[in-house]
Amino acid sequence: MKKSVFYHAGCSVCVSAENEIVELLGTDNVEIVHLGEEKTRIQDAESLGIKSVPVLVTPSGGVLHLNFGASIDELRA
Amino acid sequence: MKKSVFYHAGCSVCVSAENEIVELLGTDNVEIVHLGEEKTRIQDAESLGIKSVPVLVTPSGGVLHLNFGASIDELRA
Repeated sequence: MKKSVFYHAGCSVCVSAENEIVELLGTDNVEIVHLGEEKTRIQDAESLGIKSVPVLVTPSGGVLHLNFGASIDELRA
Repeated sequence: MKKSVFYHAGCSVCVSAENEIVELLGTDNVEIVHLGEEKTRIQDAESLGIKSVPVLVTPSGGVLHLNFGASIDELRA
């Protein structure tokens, strides 16, 4: 099965959501991407329609923004 | 395993998120609650910290607001 991808930026809202998602889906089923550390992936994230983190992109390409930690624009700074 | 609970109100954002969540977790692992039709559960939802729908409450009690469809206040109307 194609993995889900969880994008975050290390914020407390992000960490909390990450724990929930990993528990729900299992570590093996989700790739974790820290956009604060992997800034080259910010553009990819935006092209998927991501507006803020934390966010989960499902294997079918669905974008689920989870609560609200930070906007993508803030991560560029 | 205790089930996750997905609360929604029938809006298009809700339906889209519901499809993603059911695909991710499996139908058997998530209870679907339509707060527009089960208004008696709005108060329970609020006591869990729910501010808007669609939202997923994990078995451990974590609240993940998914994108944004409608606020809880709007559902009372």
